[in-house]
Amino acid sequence: MAKTNPGRFFEDYTLGQVIEHAVPRTVSGGERALYHALYPARHALYSSDAFAQACGLAASPVDDLIAFHVVFGKTVPDISLNAVANLGYAEGRWLKPVWPGDTLRSTSEVIGLKQNSNGKTGVVWVRTRGMNQAGETVMEYVRWVMVRKRDVEAAAPETVVPELAKVVDPGDLAVPAGLDFTRYDITLAGEPHRWGDYEVGETIDHVDGVTVEEAEHMMATRLWQNTSKVHFDASMRADGKRLIYGGHVISLARALSFNGLANAQMIAGLNAGAHANPCFAGDTVRAWSEVLLDLDYWALMPV
Amino acid sequence: MAKTNPGRFFEDYTLGQVIEHAVPRTVSGGERALYHALYPARHALYSSDAFAQACGLAASPVDDLIAFHVVFGKTVPDISLNAVANLGYAEGRWLKPVWPGDTLRSTSEVIGLKQNSNGKTGVVWVRTRGMNQAGETVMEYVRWVMVRKRDVEAAAPETVVPELAKVVDPGDLAVPAGLDFTRYDITLAGEPHRWGDYEVGETIDHVDGVTVEEAEHMMATRLWQNTSKVHFDASMRADGKRLIYGGHVISLARALSFNGLANAQMIAGLNAGAHANPCFAGDTVRAWSEVLLDLDYWALMPV
Amino acid sequence: MAKTNPGRFFEDYTLGQVIEHAVPRTVSGGERALYHALYPARHALYSSDAFAQACGLAASPVDDLIAFHVVFGKTVPDISLNAVANLGYAEGRWLKPVWPGDTLRSTSEVIGLKQNSNGKTGVVWVRTRGMNQAGETVMEYVRWVMVRKRDVEAAAPETVVPELAKVVDPGDLAVPAGLDFTRYDITLAGEPHRWGDYEVGETIDHVDGVTVEEAEHMMATRLWQNTSKVHFDASMRADGKRLIYGGHVISLARALSFNGLANAQMIAGLNAGAHANPCFAGDTVRAWSEVLLDLDYWALMPV
Repeated sequence: MAKTNPGRFFEDYTLGQVIEHAVPRTVSGGERALYHALYPARHALYSSDAFAQACGLAASPVDDLIAFHVVFGKTVPDISLNAVANLGYAEGRWLKPVWPGDTLRSTSEVIGLKQNSNGKTGVVWVRTRGMNQAGETVMEYVRWVMVRKRDVEAAAPETVVPELAKVVDPGDLAVPAGLDFTRYDITLAGEPHRWGDYEVGETIDHVDGVTVEEAEHMMATRLWQNTSKVHFDASMRADGKRLIYGGHVISLARALSFNGLANAQMIAGLNAGAHANPCFAGDTVRAWSEVLLDLDYWALMPV
Repeated sequence: MAKTNPGRFFEDYTLGQVIEHAVPRTVSGGERALYHALYPARHALYSSDAFAQACGLAASPVDDLIAFHVVFGKTVPDISLNAVANLGYAEGRWLKPVWPGDTLRSTSEVIGLKQNSNGKTGVVWVRTRGMNQAGETVMEYVRWVMVRKRDVEAAAPETVVPELAKVVDPGDLAVPAGLDFTRYDITLAGEPHRWGDYEVGETIDHVDGVTVEEAEHMMATRLWQNTSKVHFDASMRADGKRLIYGGHVISLARALSFNGLANAQMIAGLNAGAHANPCFAGDTVRAWSEVLLDLDYWALMPV
Repeated sequence: MAKTNPGRFFEDYTLGQVIEHAVPRTVSGGERALYHALYPARHALYSSDAFAQACGLAASPVDDLIAFHVVFGKTVPDISLNAVANLGYAEGRWLKPVWPGDTLRSTSEVIGLKQNSNGKTGVVWVRTRGMNQAGETVMEYVRWVMVRKRDVEAAAPETVVPELAKVVDPGDLAVPAGLDFTRYDITLAGEPHRWGDYEVGETIDHVDGVTVEEAEHMMATRLWQNTSKVHFDASMRADGKRLIYGGHVISLARALSFNGLANAQMIAGLNAGAHANPCFAGDTVRAWSEVLLDLDYWALMPV
């Protein structure tokens, strides 16, 4: 019997199945420093204990996207090792800050299955939850991936396509315990723009660009213990290129968004996401944002 | 109104103006480890808690140049985003060690202004101070940069060129509280040369060289939250090259100087500095030192 | 007198000589995070405090190979700066876990000398020990290197070739105090294969590959304060290539071995090792293992 993990194929998933992902991970100031070395992250709440303490937190948490990447990375050996494509994200919520010293693990529940008409692949929807060492859910999201079948003759499962919210109900978003922007220091935060300064339909060109190197995206992706071969092994694609982990680009975009959204300190939810085009070393990544909604109970930007 | 930071232009500076820079930063063992990954740093006082404790300190501080880079990085969005050239440094002093857990922020005071004769640019002198979370100044230095004017028609300010000390008065240098080299272990420090072994005029070729990679200088520069576009975005220069942050070269040189100056444990002051030539990925950096002064109250090398 | 370290030549070693290596090093969560960024390390005991605590340890130690690299790195300026080749390893034992906050230093004892028949080089055998701040030996190993003579006319020393064990006596291997796999969570560890599932002669192809970048191997090697010039300075070899530190490849192989040996949590001993071929940036490293021995007192894999 082969000892190595071949990954799951489409016919290995069943509706309602819960997969406990391996290799829990403790984060420290080391992951935080590396995050700042790999991404131009400048949001003050994640940069400074003193700033976070003035906002009512015990210390600066690690970046929301560190939590995402660690939780996501654990799922790769079970969910996307044989994926043809990572199709989308929905219903993402950050529920508890993650602090240096916390240990994260994750589980995924299969909530949808649909075999493709070619009979060779299918789409799997999972709801993934990341938990800390106390068993508290720190974040969750839905993602769906197209996965190869091992045996094209395997019977198709009953098609179940989950209904996913287009927008996370703002009432379901979480504000970290103790967070209080009464003494928020707008000068130290870096920009004067407050909640009322943004308008629906406004677009912001975040101006800065980052030309990406192989060593950077591999170090980042490895740090999240993402094991997808295409990110690390130049022999996996016919063109000899290493595909950059989509989450690396998400983190670059979020970090670049500081320039114009410096006061959007925390990510509360993720309504939708897609990896629209591949990214390779040598590419220069830029970012822009559009203000889509105006929620008067939006609590995380100082008013 | 554009939400992004266009940086200040020459006419935006006024004499005596004090700029509080944004994005305070907490450093940890993570920044220390990255410093050792990015530079061949070997000075024992910054490598070992046990060595530092034997020298009377509570633990090993982070490298003096970590303090410098963090303090400097904060100033970039306000001082040098539209700089044509970073002209020089003077009157640098390290006043307090920085420890893992400390939060640094910085302020700059405009101490000199001089419009250039072409009317398109001017020189701005600032004295920058870095403070820890207790408000103590951990380091300070003067730097001057050539900055573009937004409007060439803008009136020139009164010319004020500050008088800067050629040499920091040794009486103004700081010795960290508790530092005591009575039990200094010269074997663990790595070299036998003590203060009395160096002579004025002596030059030391530090022998080793480091060939620099794009990923390395970008990770370093990002870690210090330096936002200057030319370091990260290959589309900013006509030649497609990313200019290496001058401070990266300073840290390389200081680290390389271990080989011949292993007992010069701490940087007490910076009398002058200039970025003489640009450095690009692929270049191999070497270093040499010349002993310029012989101060009998030089306290930081074991006698 | 030159202040820089020229390294020792063959005639500088004498049998029984004990060399105390310089620059002690404190490790933290930063070194741990960098290790995970530089190598695809996934063994749960070194990834998660919670997992390690469930196994009876106070917290997750740093990877065994962090201990090895730090201890080894200190020896380079004294043992292998003028080495022509790093010939082999034997009798390696890991005796105490290393924890964040520990400070490591190392000493080497010359246990063998043999001048080569060409009279220009010789082989030096050393037994190197790494100690923590309490003076406890955390690991030790024997290595032998071929070193240049400074003066080919120098007299040859008496030839002493140490007898080295082909296999470390299992009774001499150490099990960390408190380690208890009674509550071992095989799901979180990532693979179902236990001790009884492996057979002598079985080979495991670890499947995954890593294409190596210059920035990665230099950051790793620098982090271990290894000063060998060929790893960093592209001008040292006629072909302009930087030779990758052999230990970098060892760490890559060990990390890749997770896929098939996920439950081999700790390295207890190293019977033999050789750097069979050079590795350069751009190479893709893969790994395979062969089960050589079946020790019924093997204690570190859950039975």
